Amino acid sequence: MKKLLIVLFVLFTANAWAQVKLDHVEPMFWWAGMKNPKLQLLVHGKNITDYSVQLDYPGVKLIEVHQVENPNYLFVDLEITAAAKAGKFPISFMDKGKKISEYSYELKNRDQSASRIQGVTNKDFIYLLMPDRFSNGDPSNDVVKGLAETKMNRDSMYYRHGGDIQGVINHLDYLKATGVTTIWMTPEIENDMASASYHGYAVTDHYKIDPRYGTNALYKTYVEKVHAKGMKIIKDIVHNHIGTGHWIFKDMPMKDWVNQWPVYTQTSYRDEPVMDPHSSALDKKRQLDGWFVPSMPDLNERNPYVQNYLTQNHIWWIEYAGIDGLRLDTYAYNDPEYMADWALKLKAEFPSLSIFGETLVNSVASQAYFTQGNTVNRGFDTNLPGVTDNMMKSAVYEALNGKTGWTDGIFRLYNVVSQDFLYQDPTRNVIYWDNHDMSRFYSVIKEDIDKYKSGMAILLTMRGIPQLYYGTEILMKNFSDPDGLVRSDFPGGWKGDKEDKFTAAGRTAKENEAWDYVSKLAVYRGKSEALQTGKMMQFVPEDGLYVYFRYITEGKQGKDVMVILNSEDKAKKLEVSRFAERMKNTSSAVNVISGEKVNTAKTISVPAKTTLVLELN
Amino acid sequence: MKKLLIVLFVLFTANAWAQVKLDHVEPMFWWAGMKNPKLQLLVHGKNITDYSVQLDYPGVKLIEVHQVENPNYLFVDLEITAAAKAGKFPISFMDKGKKISEYSYELKNRDQSASRIQGVTNKDFIYLLMPDRFSNGDPSNDVVKGLAETKMNRDSMYYRHGGDIQGVINHLDYLKATGVTTIWMTPEIENDMASASYHGYAVTDHYKIDPRYGTNALYKTYVEKVHAKGMKIIKDIVHNHIGTGHWIFKDMPMKDWVNQWPVYTQTSYRDEPVMDPHSSALDKKRQLDGWFVPSMPDLNERNPYVQNYLTQNHIWWIEYAGIDGLRLDTYAYNDPEYMADWALKLKAEFPSLSIFGETLVNSVASQAYFTQGNTVNRGFDTNLPGVTDNMMKSAVYEALNGKTGWTDGIFRLYNVVSQDFLYQDPTRNVIYWDNHDMSRFYSVIKEDIDKYKSGMAILLTMRGIPQLYYGTEILMKNFSDPDGLVRSDFPGGWKGDKEDKFTAAGRTAKENEAWDYVSKLAVYRGKSEALQTGKMMQFVPEDGLYVYFRYITEGKQGKDVMVILNSEDKAKKLEVSRFAERMKNTSSAVNVISGEKVNTAKTISVPAKTTLVLELN
Repeated sequence: MKKLLIVLFVLFTANAWAQVKLDHVEPMFWWAGMKNPKLQLLVHGKNITDYSVQLDYPGVKLIEVHQVENPNYLFVDLEITAAAKAGKFPISFMDKGKKISEYSYELKNRDQSASRIQGVTNKDFIYLLMPDRFSNGDPSNDVVKGLAETKMNRDSMYYRHGGDIQGVINHLDYLKATGVTTIWMTPEIENDMASASYHGYAVTDHYKIDPRYGTNALYKTYVEKVHAKGMKIIKDIVHNHIGTGHWIFKDMPMKDWVNQWPVYTQTSYRDEPVMDPHSSALDKKRQLDGWFVPSMPDLNERNPYVQNYLTQNHIWWIEYAGIDGLRLDTYAYNDPEYMADWALKLKAEFPSLSIFGETLVNSVASQAYFTQGNTVNRGFDTNLPGVTDNMMKSAVYEALNGKTGWTDGIFRLYNVVSQDFLYQDPTRNVIYWDNHDMSRFYSVIKEDIDKYKSGMAILLTMRGIPQLYYGTEILMKNFSDPDGLVRSDFPGGWKGDKEDKFTAAGRTAKENEAWDYVSKLAVYRGKSEALQTGKMMQFVPEDGLYVYFRYITEGKQGKDVMVILNSEDKAKKLEVSRFAERMKNTSSAVNVISGEKVNTAKTISVPAKTTLVLELN
Repeated sequence: MKKLLIVLFVLFTANAWAQVKLDHVEPMFWWAGMKNPKLQLLVHGKNITDYSVQLDYPGVKLIEVHQVENPNYLFVDLEITAAAKAGKFPISFMDKGKKISEYSYELKNRDQSASRIQGVTNKDFIYLLMPDRFSNGDPSNDVVKGLAETKMNRDSMYYRHGGDIQGVINHLDYLKATGVTTIWMTPEIENDMASASYHGYAVTDHYKIDPRYGTNALYKTYVEKVHAKGMKIIKDIVHNHIGTGHWIFKDMPMKDWVNQWPVYTQTSYRDEPVMDPHSSALDKKRQLDGWFVPSMPDLNERNPYVQNYLTQNHIWWIEYAGIDGLRLDTYAYNDPEYMADWALKLKAEFPSLSIFGETLVNSVASQAYFTQGNTVNRGFDTNLPGVTDNMMKSAVYEALNGKTGWTDGIFRLYNVVSQDFLYQDPTRNVIYWDNHDMSRFYSVIKEDIDKYKSGMAILLTMRGIPQLYYGTEILMKNFSDPDGLVRSDFPGGWKGDKEDKFTAAGRTAKENEAWDYVSKLAVYRGKSEALQTGKMMQFVPEDGLYVYFRYITEGKQGKDVMVILNSEDKAKKLEVSRFAERMKNTSSAVNVISGEKVNTAKTISVPAKTTLVLELN
């Protein structure tokens, strides 16, 4: 084999091939047997536009080669028919009949293992973490030579801290014990930016795990290990923008690869113009095409080359690693038509894949506008199954912190839930009380452990897919402004950390109280058909008490769950007669947290500021 | 003819006719040529159930006679075919072949005058008043013998004050000068209740103007006079409930004429259960069938007799008096299916009739849910053209009083307007900043004359049908709780009042400033195609300034209007370049209030807490 390579090298040298260096051929490889036979290769190399392309492989057709503004690019359209088998074949670049470069393209077999691409549903419990801030499993990759950011500094929120994929792998048992079923990392893809590169949303190479987190192979291994533990993976992907450090931004195929403005124009960060019938065209353009920040150029998602590039990249990662679900960053800033088409293409390849979009918007109607099969977005289907339920979050804070008024406090929460009629299926929404972009839950509820438990009880019993932000289970706190401390390191994630909060021994009594509460309820949820797939029934709040049920429907097995939120500072007695629709066949229940039996025949005692979770007998 | 009648009388006496007194035959008369040939007469008289019914009139068919639980009722189904001409005919009640009673029924000709039933649209400006509290034009009817409430007392908010229809007639010139185009009175129908009968929503006779306000004939005259002035009329009707003093409640046709509960059950006053997919059946029933207050029995709108009774009554009033529009009280408390069918029947008879429903609800989605042709109420059309826009009201208070935040202040207003995508046509909504059920606008904005003008500017330039509550144009104030003073008398409406605010001389300088502002803008609005029917374009607020345009579309004539709301306490300069979509063909404007010319080439100065209304050249 070695000899053959040497011979080939000599031959090629003799033919003056390899005169053109192929800087990028993407996707680097692909798979036989994809639903969509089309594949568009991006080929990047100095003045490659001058050359013709040849290939000869059974079942693979060269359809068209596109020259674009920048002579350093060719876009090569292939058709990979059902007849194409896995294997390698050369793609040749020819100058007047002479081969001047070659790329060995591979079609792999698709991996059909049952553990892969399972989807993430309301049966799951998502744990969101920032890979730089969770655990440093491999100190050898903390600083990687050749990258723009040259040092790490755990004392600053804006430098790298050294966390990585190996760190997460090392703590899968912790996550499993916490009751987590799904891990969502903020983007682990390369962010070769000079500052704040830990952030993850300024992609500089779509096909490469950031070397400070690990390698593509390690990422694949990580997904496999997570699957082996019976857990799942969500990948955080960014359609809207890239980092200025991206190689493609430094040598763009065409000027309109990104959205260009006469002078730098930032997005308004407001989704309203997208749906507002009274919007100005400028405001809509500003939201969709304005740049997120100067260091993150806004991709032109109306450019078909950009569309292909992104869509194929996402398909590539899912098929490569076996990812279960995608979280789409800054969903409301993307081109709606492209995103709708993108979702169809992804679902065609991976029917069980789950997808939800980040919609940090200002009304339930806006959230619903972005979801699949809604009725408010007249005649246009986004094909987006779910969204991050920002309105639910605000409402829960209202319920826990607000005064009781006609539209305040628990009534706000009740009202938001009642607006579920706007969705085709609200259970596909991801519900959460905090994430990396906002103040931590425990701080916002003023470090009140009772309210904390109430909030966790709602998170784990309300309709939707619950998501916890790393550390909230151990009472990590802080506000998002001005110091960024909401992205602090998980104590114990670094060798030599003074405290190790991954273990009960390392946690304070209060932290254990919190962790025990979350894990107990999460583990219970993992076995409760009612909480996982049951229907919901809520009642108009009365006397400061908000009551809802999750209940089993015909043909399913299990016990119904009753949730009672007492938002007030005093203990209450709940008269149960109002709830006969759900309670008529029972007069007792079990408190899921304490294990105590509760007589529910007439009244139920609810301590102050407490949410009871009762399994009905 | 006279001779014949005498002969008949003798004959009938001989036959013992008129043994049965007909207490009620309703509708008392009807019209030939209605679209719907069906008519169901309610006949009420002691033990009338025992008798058969006969009639003989060309084109009128007796279809069926219904006996019901209560022997004092018959429901008589007639078909009035297209062949039926106007005229009178007897309806006979027979006992074993003997006539024991007779009612002379009349079919009138429909009045097709162009001034009648014109509809109220976004071209109009509605003035809402309480007839007991506006002006006493006829002191002779202040206390009417035989009614349950036996005295008046202007010193108490809960007694009659003596205002009446003649009082309104006396002030039509005032209303016209104010720029009002449409008068909406709270119900002027009989409320023979022992206390708080001025209120108007506890109907005791569906076919009778309250004698303290006047007579049916005076009401008809009033509508004609209003039409003669070029103005229009909205009638306030109540489907949901009646007063306990209603004759029909005292002797109900059947027990389920009203919604019965084992123990008195009040409505929750919450609309959420009507649309909430997670609602309990009990909560929904409580909202729809619960009683509003103990003195107002909740009508069972699923009872077909009740349906016919109400629907015919409303048709009767419109055809009788020539009313232009209806305001439907407590819309969200009514049976949805009945209301949808009702609206179709009304529109079939009166295609140009306007209808809007009171929806004091808690989200734009809820409001939209109740409107015609919305997409959120899956597969069910309410056929209700418009609603009272409670969310717009709250948002305007936020804009005038709120801090500037991401979802507060002017952003709340901007956001609410952006949710117009939920409606088929948001311009059919009635917008208002106060009414008889809430604190007065001037008080809520803390008696700040600048904010007052800002509010009035928005009211008269925003999309929708503006509605003013009587007295707000002269800075009447007060909060709804606890004293009910928001229903104070209009000063000058009573002979001997110390002040007469109907005249400039009777108003203070500040009151004149307010009145002049409102009337100037209302009169301008009355001539502005842009404000009446123009499209709206709004821009994302920036620097505390909220900017929107009302603009002329192709084929229409007139000048565009630009509105700039400065919500802050300091003067601002607005850069106009952002607004090129609407301003590119102009560099000057006229301030509609001051008449001053404004250079709009580059910047526009906006004083603190001010809303500028500019007519663009």
